[in-house]
Amino acid sequence: MSEHVYKSLELTGSSKSSSDDAIRRAIERASETVRNIKWFHVQDVRGHVEDGKIAHWQVTIKIGFTLE
Amino acid sequence: MSEHVYKSLELTGSSKSSSDDAIRRAIERASETVRNIKWFHVQDVRGHVEDGKIAHWQVTIKIGFTLE
Amino acid sequence: MSEHVYKSLELTGSSKSSSDDAIRRAIERASETVRNIKWFHVQDVRGHVEDGKIAHWQVTIKIGFTLE
Amino acid sequence: MSEHVYKSLELTGSSKSSSDDAIRRAIERASETVRNIKWFHVQDVRGHVEDGKIAHWQVTIKIGFTLE
Amino acid sequence: MSEHVYKSLELTGSSKSSSDDAIRRAIERASETVRNIKWFHVQDVRGHVEDGKIAHWQVTIKIGFTLE
Amino acid sequence: MSEHVYKSLELTGSSKSSSDDAIRRAIERASETVRNIKWFHVQDVRGHVEDGKIAHWQVTIKIGFTLE
Amino acid sequence: MSEHVYKSLELTGSSKSSSDDAIRRAIERASETVRNIKWFHVQDVRGHVEDGKIAHWQVTIKIGFTLE
Amino acid sequence: MSEHVYKSLELTGSSKSSSDDAIRRAIERASETVRNIKWFHVQDVRGHVEDGKIAHWQVTIKIGFTLE
Amino acid sequence: MSEHVYKSLELTGSSKSSSDDAIRRAIERASETVRNIKWFHVQDVRGHVEDGKIAHWQVTIKIGFTLE
Amino acid sequence: MSEHVYKSLELTGSSKSSSDDAIRRAIERASETVRNIKWFHVQDVRGHVEDGKIAHWQVTIKIGFTLE
Amino acid sequence: MSEHVYKSLELTGSSKSSSDDAIRRAIERASETVRNIKWFHVQDVRGHVEDGKIAHWQVTIKIGFTLE
Amino acid sequence: MSEHVYKSLELTGSSKSSSDDAIRRAIERASETVRNIKWFHVQDVRGHVEDGKIAHWQVTIKIGFTLE
Repeated sequence: MSEHVYKSLELTGSSKSSSDDAIRRAIERASETVRNIKWFHVQDVRGHVEDGKIAHWQVTIKIGFTLE
Repeated sequence: MSEHVYKSLELTGSSKSSSDDAIRRAIERASETVRNIKWFHVQDVRGHVEDGKIAHWQVTIKIGFTLE
Repeated sequence: MSEHVYKSLELTGSSKSSSDDAIRRAIERASETVRNIKWFHVQDVRGHVEDGKIAHWQVTIKIGFTLE
Repeated sequence: MSEHVYKSLELTGSSKSSSDDAIRRAIERASETVRNIKWFHVQDVRGHVEDGKIAHWQVTIKIGFTLE
Repeated sequence: MSEHVYKSLELTGSSKSSSDDAIRRAIERASETVRNIKWFHVQDVRGHVEDGKIAHWQVTIKIGFTLE
Repeated sequence: MSEHVYKSLELTGSSKSSSDDAIRRAIERASETVRNIKWFHVQDVRGHVEDGKIAHWQVTIKIGFTLE
Repeated sequence: MSEHVYKSLELTGSSKSSSDDAIRRAIERASETVRNIKWFHVQDVRGHVEDGKIAHWQVTIKIGFTLE
Repeated sequence: MSEHVYKSLELTGSSKSSSDDAIRRAIERASETVRNIKWFHVQDVRGHVEDGKIAHWQVTIKIGFTLE
Repeated sequence: MSEHVYKSLELTGSSKSSSDDAIRRAIERASETVRNIKWFHVQDVRGHVEDGKIAHWQVTIKIGFTLE
Repeated sequence: MSEHVYKSLELTGSSKSSSDDAIRRAIERASETVRNIKWFHVQDVRGHVEDGKIAHWQVTIKIGFTLE
Repeated sequence: MSEHVYKSLELTGSSKSSSDDAIRRAIERASETVRNIKWFHVQDVRGHVEDGKIAHWQVTIKIGFTLE
Repeated sequence: MSEHVYKSLELTGSSKSSSDDAIRRAIERASETVRNIKWFHVQDVRGHVEDGKIAHWQVTIKIGFTLE
C-alpha cells in the first residue's frame, strides 16, 4: 500500500469443473512466471457447450502485481 | 469454425444451490429444443432472498448455436 | 409486487472459500440489521492473491429491500 | 420464483402518443403469440421527427417469459 | 451550489399507471425521511406483466440530497 | 435513406409536467433553427426536486438532421 | 415507420475475406427464413487467427424486422 | 500537439458500398465547411436492409478539429 | 483483508479550488459520521461555470467502509 | 432551472501543467464565443508522453449552455 | 479447447488503406514475436485526417494466445 | 503517425500527494524499461483512506508505445 507501481495482465483460465476453478487455474499458471501477484478482477465468464453440457468454463480475469 | 452463421438466445436459469448450477440448468433446458449449442456467455447474476438467505440464484446467459 | 418503494444498498462480502460464499456472507451480515431483503445483484467479482493462491474472494452486490 | 428457465426477446414498439404507450403496444403484440410474459426492461428510447414534431416514439424493450 | 457535500441513495418506485408516476412515488416516499432532496437521476425502467398487460412499472432512480 | 450525411446535436429539454414533454420542448426549440430534424434518441433522464416534489424534468437527447 | 412492432435477433456471421462480408453473410442467411428485415446494428467484431493470419472474421449483429 | 483546444462533432455517413466508405463520405462532407479536421472515432455501425440485402451502410463517427 | 463485509456510499464533494480538493472534502465530511472508511473510487467529475470560469468542481465518489 | 433548453458541446483542452488546467483552458476558450455556459462534465483524460515525461494533458469535456 | 490458460495483449495497427488492413498489420507484427495467437477482438476504430481525407486508419484490438 | 504498430500496457501508479502525481509516477516507472511511450489514457481513479484522510491516490492508466 506504499507508493508502488502495479502492472495488470489479462488472462483467461479454463476448467472442466467450475467457474471458480477456471480463475484458480489462471492465477496458478501466472504465478509460475510472475512474482508478487496481489489481486484479480473478473472481466468475463464464458464457456463451451458440447452435447447440451458445459464442456469448459472460461473466465477472463485481470491480475495485478507490484513492479519491483 | 468454418463459414457458419450463429444465432444467440438470451436465457435466465435459476437454482436453489449455486450460480454455476443456474447456468447448467438453463443450458440443459435449452438443449431440449435447440441443437448445436456451442457456447454460453454470462450477462448477469442475480437472486431472490427470503428470511435473510438466498432462496434462488438467477443467472442470465447468452447461448450461441449454429444455423444449419 | 404491489406499489411498494424499494431501497438498494451496495455491499462487498469476502470469503476464503468461493465467490458464491462471499455473496452469502454479505447477505447474512446485512440481514442482521435490514429487514425485508428481497433480491441481490452481482456488481463485481475480485479477490486478493497471496503466494500464488486466492486468499480471499471479494464480491460486490446490490441488495434491495422494501421500505415499510 | 421456482426453478424455472426464462427466455428473453427484444422488441421495439412504436406509438404516435407517448413513450409508455410504445411499450404497451410491444407487450400487447408479443402476448398474441407468447404466453407467460413476466417482465419487461427498457433498453432504448428513440423516435422519428417530422416538421419539428415527434411523429413516432420508438421504445426497445426486452421481455421475459417462462419456458414451460 | 456552495461547497456542500451531497449523498446519493438508490430507490425503486412502482406504479400501476405510468413510468413517471413510479418516479414520483419513490421521491415522495423518500422525502418522508430525507430532507433536502435536490435531484433525481433515472437508472433503469422495468415492469411486471400479467395476462399480457403491464401490471406495475418499476423505475430505479438515484436521489441526491445535501448533508447538513 | 439515400447517401446523405447526418449531423447530431445534444440537447436537454426541461418541463414541469412530464419526461415526454421535456423531450417535445427540446425538439420544438431546436426546430426553430435546425431544418430537417429526422430523429431523437434519449440519453439521460434527470430532474430537480423541491419540497419533496419534482419541480422540473430534464431529459437529454441527441437529435439527428440531414446536412443539405 | 407506422405503428409497427419490430423484433430483434442476434446473429454472428463469419467470412474468410472481410468484416463487411461476414455481416452480409449473416443477413443473407437470416433472410432465408425471416421476412421483412429492415436494419442491422453491429455489436462486436472478432476473428480467429491461424499461423499469424486472420482465418475467419466473425461479426455479431442485431437484425430488426417487422412483426406482421 | 501544442496547447490547442479541439472541438468534436458527431456525424453519420452512409454508403451503398462499404462501412469504410460511409466514414469517408462523412469526413469529406464535413471538410467542405470545417477546417482543420484532425481525427475521427467510430461510434456505431448500422445499416438498412432491403429484400435481404444491405441497401445502405450507416456509420456514426466523431470528428475532432482545432479551434483557431 | 479478513472476512469482513464492506458497505459503499455514494457522495459528491464540491470545491472552488480543484477536483482533488472536492474529493478530500467529501471524505472528510463523511468521516465525521462514518468510521472505518477504507477506500474511495471516483465515479464522475463535473462542475459549475459562471462568467466563463469554473465556479465549483463537483466530484462524485463511492466510499467503502467496514461493517463492524 | 426554469423551462430552458440547454445545448451541449464536446471539447478537448490541453495543458502542459495539469489535468485541471486542461479543463480550465477548454472552458475559457469556449466562453470567447459561447455565452451562458452553465456546467462541464469530464468525459476522458489522456495525454502525450515525450522522453518518459507527460508533455501535454488532454481532457475531453462536455459543456452545457442555455439556448436563449 | 482443453484446459489451457490464455493471455491477451492490446495492440493498435495502422494502415493507409482500410480498417481491416490495420487489423491485419497488427496481427502480422505481433506474430513475429508471439506464437500461438488464436483470436482477435476489435476494441476501437479511429483514424487521422489530413486535408479532409483519411490519412491513416488506426484499429485497437486485443489478441489472445495460449500460454504453453 | 506512419504505419506503426502500437502496444498498450495497463499500470496503476500511487502517490501520497495528488491524482496527477500518481499518473506521473506510473509513467516514469514504466519508462525505465519501456522505450517510445507515446500516450497515456486514464482508466480509473481510486485511493486508500486512513483516519478520515486520503493516504494514497491510485490511478490506473493505459500507456501506448511503438513496437520497433
